[in-house]
Amino acid sequence: MRKRHTYVISDRTGLTAETLSHSLLSQFPSVQFDIENLPFIDTPEKARQTADALNKSAHASGVKPLVFATLVNDEMREIISTANVVFFDLFDTFIEPLEKELDVESSHSVGKSHGVLDFAEYSARMSAVNFAMATDDGMELDHYARADVVVVGPSRTGKTPTCLYLSLQFGVFAANYPLTDNDLNSTDLPATLAPYREKLFGLSIDPFRLQQIRQERYSGDIYAAAKTCQFEVAQAEAMFRAADVPFVNTTKKSVEEIGAYIVHKGALRRKF
Amino acid sequence: MRKRHTYVISDRTGLTAETLSHSLLSQFPSVQFDIENLPFIDTPEKARQTADALNKSAHASGVKPLVFATLVNDEMREIISTANVVFFDLFDTFIEPLEKELDVESSHSVGKSHGVLDFAEYSARMSAVNFAMATDDGMELDHYARADVVVVGPSRTGKTPTCLYLSLQFGVFAANYPLTDNDLNSTDLPATLAPYREKLFGLSIDPFRLQQIRQERYSGDIYAAAKTCQFEVAQAEAMFRAADVPFVNTTKKSVEEIGAYIVHKGALRRKF
Repeated sequence: MRKRHTYVISDRTGLTAETLSHSLLSQFPSVQFDIENLPFIDTPEKARQTADALNKSAHASGVKPLVFATLVNDEMREIISTANVVFFDLFDTFIEPLEKELDVESSHSVGKSHGVLDFAEYSARMSAVNFAMATDDGMELDHYARADVVVVGPSRTGKTPTCLYLSLQFGVFAANYPLTDNDLNSTDLPATLAPYREKLFGLSIDPFRLQQIRQERYSGDIYAAAKTCQFEVAQAEAMFRAADVPFVNTTKKSVEEIGAYIVHKGALRRKF
Repeated sequence: MRKRHTYVISDRTGLTAETLSHSLLSQFPSVQFDIENLPFIDTPEKARQTADALNKSAHASGVKPLVFATLVNDEMREIISTANVVFFDLFDTFIEPLEKELDVESSHSVGKSHGVLDFAEYSARMSAVNFAMATDDGMELDHYARADVVVVGPSRTGKTPTCLYLSLQFGVFAANYPLTDNDLNSTDLPATLAPYREKLFGLSIDPFRLQQIRQERYSGDIYAAAKTCQFEVAQAEAMFRAADVPFVNTTKKSVEEIGAYIVHKGALRRKF
């Protein structure tokens, strides 16, 4: 099957356009897309070069490329949208109805969207990242009093990326504690965690997936054996249930989904 | 000024809706918005409760709330969109024209968007996060041969969050190396970095901002003095220029912008 050429074009980072176009295209699993990101198209000159490339792509493939754009500047948008493409403007589509509803004109300024420019915001984010780094993998347990959430689970269930994501995306203070085989010989909460029960959030996983992950680096090791993985997952889930710790199965979830779920379930507040 | 009540509603994480609505609203700096995120509205029951809350909000404030939604399911969208709100569907608006253009029906399935469900993808992301953690702050220099990029700059210019973001968002292997006062006594590249010149990317910053950041924790210290910050930034930039290392001033940039810029400038490829 031929792939449909698709371009994600923005005058800034293109993250908004990437996120929404990815969501949209995932609704068409039967179509293959060949996606190219073209961020920072922020001068008429770059816009014209891009339009030329789009026209060539249309000519070469015989099919108009799809273009998903967030172009705030009218001139750049005009140049790109009049190329030989199917043009979806993810931004301008909503700006006009918003202007009407709010009864003000939009600023038409480029790239205000992803800026964490305020010092207090920057500082909140940095503090959260530093906290996640310092408390990774069961280090610095004495920091838990300052944690918003302590993510708990067997080794390789996704605790580290989840905490880093929570810190970067939400400025949340997220520590993580690995349940070792010692902890998992009982279904009681480890003594070090018991005082923070209300902050705990568990990660579980399909034991077969866990085995697959562990075998990548520790093939043959007892740590990566099916039995070990099954036992650890069963014990961890029993522990979470006994202590009434909310938990989520991470097998089919991305870091973004796990993070959003923890924020939602824990009623945590974004810090910036 | 009264704030306009705004709700970001999704049947999944709401990240797409959050990203786009944030971009859109930032174009109206004169309006204050009171934004509430309502993710995981994934049953008709939850949708009806949400619609009730929206109607109450409209009644209490006398103004229709703005709703930015990514609701894939028709029933849930119907329930929310018929509440007393100004409804912007960030998703459905584009699905129908896409269906026509592609000549296939969309799957109407919830939450395919942020899934990193494939094991190879999961694995690529985890490897990148582990790499960033292992090589943070000038550790494990022998790993640099495997790095896609080595982020270099004086202390507190934003290297760590940038590398974590690059690993999480793009699966890029990003190490970071802090330029210490020892390194900065010369404008030559440090000997340990010289073999990796092509992989280097510099971070610079406004010296006053750097001073502000350093003073937060090290007030009174020579490390946080204006002179030190000015000297380190000037030397670092001179070093970058002399060695032809691309660099970016991070003062007014978010981690997302710095990350996207490095990927763009370095022609790095997303690994998943």
